[in-house]
Amino acid sequence: MSKDYLLLPQVKKDLKIVEEELAKVVAADGVKLAESSLTTLRAGGKRLRPILVLLTGMTNNYDLSCLIPAATAIELVHTASLIHDDVLDEADTRRGFPTVNAAWDAETAISTGDYLFGIAFEVLSKLGNSDIVKVMADAVLALSVGELHQMRTCHSLNQTIDDYLTKIKNKTALLFSAACLVGATLSGASEIEVEALGKYGENLGMAFQIYDDVLDISGDEEILGKPIGIDLKDGMVTMPIFFALEETPQSKYLQKVVENVNSTEEDIKKAINIIESTSAIERTKNEAKRFIESALETIDLIAEGEVKKGLRSIGEFVVDRYH
Amino acid sequence: MSKDYLLLPQVKKDLKIVEEELAKVVAADGVKLAESSLTTLRAGGKRLRPILVLLTGMTNNYDLSCLIPAATAIELVHTASLIHDDVLDEADTRRGFPTVNAAWDAETAISTGDYLFGIAFEVLSKLGNSDIVKVMADAVLALSVGELHQMRTCHSLNQTIDDYLTKIKNKTALLFSAACLVGATLSGASEIEVEALGKYGENLGMAFQIYDDVLDISGDEEILGKPIGIDLKDGMVTMPIFFALEETPQSKYLQKVVENVNSTEEDIKKAINIIESTSAIERTKNEAKRFIESALETIDLIAEGEVKKGLRSIGEFVVDRYH
Repeated sequence: MSKDYLLLPQVKKDLKIVEEELAKVVAADGVKLAESSLTTLRAGGKRLRPILVLLTGMTNNYDLSCLIPAATAIELVHTASLIHDDVLDEADTRRGFPTVNAAWDAETAISTGDYLFGIAFEVLSKLGNSDIVKVMADAVLALSVGELHQMRTCHSLNQTIDDYLTKIKNKTALLFSAACLVGATLSGASEIEVEALGKYGENLGMAFQIYDDVLDISGDEEILGKPIGIDLKDGMVTMPIFFALEETPQSKYLQKVVENVNSTEEDIKKAINIIESTSAIERTKNEAKRFIESALETIDLIAEGEVKKGLRSIGEFVVDRYH
Repeated sequence: MSKDYLLLPQVKKDLKIVEEELAKVVAADGVKLAESSLTTLRAGGKRLRPILVLLTGMTNNYDLSCLIPAATAIELVHTASLIHDDVLDEADTRRGFPTVNAAWDAETAISTGDYLFGIAFEVLSKLGNSDIVKVMADAVLALSVGELHQMRTCHSLNQTIDDYLTKIKNKTALLFSAACLVGATLSGASEIEVEALGKYGENLGMAFQIYDDVLDISGDEEILGKPIGIDLKDGMVTMPIFFALEETPQSKYLQKVVENVNSTEEDIKKAINIIESTSAIERTKNEAKRFIESALETIDLIAEGEVKKGLRSIGEFVVDRYH
């Protein structure tokens, strides 16, 4: 069964305001792009990034008038990058809903992403805080670098685990880090606390993505709401694959499946069985857990209390979801 | 012969610094996206938007330490939007150079555009001025709305001149306006001056785009460095077409060419001849000139001097280039 995590009642309540705000800012001009934006936003997701903004925003002062726009903006940036990613990956569905490129076309998806980037920075500009703009701009940069890096290295085994880690840092971890940096900064946390929370976010994001890559191989399709093996079929060389290749006597076959741009469903099934027959999933989960440990270590200096409890709970959730 | 316009020696000098800065910020991380970005930046263009930032930046104080990042950021946003537009339009060349989607692929083009948006806001964040961030974010928004609007209305005559004007305002005029608002604001111009210069930019941008649309029909291919009739073939319903349809007895044929997604070169040639046989080009040029008159009227309140001379000269250039 799907495990949930402790969400402070205050965060739960304020997340609803973020939801309303997301719908409001996107629809503001009554333009056609609002429709494609809303479709993606409504498809939902865990809203982990806004939750991190709100939660770290409690470190010192809790000023909702800043935190709501910041949490809204970060989800807009995330959504924009998902929409562009779906064009890159030629994905038809996301979270069980048709992607913008599938429901409309690639052109609409490109414009919708740009539109959401624009709104995100428009919303951010209201905060009057250039540090926040910089953190978010850097995250946009990293997202674009990470996504293209991923696409360019598909179906290629000419890469190392370090390449994989750099990719997921850019693609996922730095936006998690940005969420925490933004929340902590807006709460008026000390410099050392802001830095620690930023590192927490980065490590959490690494663990999140590594665990996501585990789910693509050993997840429960019904709980995930999508078939497994999609990334494998797309030739993404994730951590479990690196580990499995080290161990299995069938590494030649597994290698061929990864390199093949036209693997059949049967090939994928067989490759998954090969990976499952090694300790790759176990080892990968342990790596994810190690990142969570690092995340929790960095917040040692944060005072015990609700915020820390919440951050710990999210950490546990990330490496134990859907199991 | 190509006409030039008066560029203040100071602006000319500082534009070189902007060029260096563009190359520097894009290449900063040594990432792969730098290459595709630089290719597009190097292909050049008139750099009208950074010139407007520098020129309006002289209205009061001339503070290069702010103006260079602002001028750099606006060219980055412009370049990002060109790269994404080329994916939308499936264009193979721009200014005689291969587009990013042609030289690489659509995926690289999408990521490169996002990368440049990211750098633009990263550069802007250094100014510590939220008004500037808002102006630029609004411009990004408008660009995305305008481009998609244009794409969605291709090959359709179910639109009015007002639709056309709204489109080019979003697609072109608001970024010109942003350039002037940003320059004037950074120079510490009065509120009324900033507003006037913003309106100047908007009107200038309208005239610029209208004249661009004239050149697609009656321009000199050798001077333009690209074939004429491209927009017509893409089914863009521009001002000369609206006017020609009103006048020509061959409106049925012209209509068919615009609506046809597979017009041959001969169709296009014949359609251009039809348009040329009417007063559409003349009338469109007059409309462009009227926007320039409006632009110059709005800067009545700006004191006579180098800045005003420069703004006038750009206005004249825009409706008289390449003729």
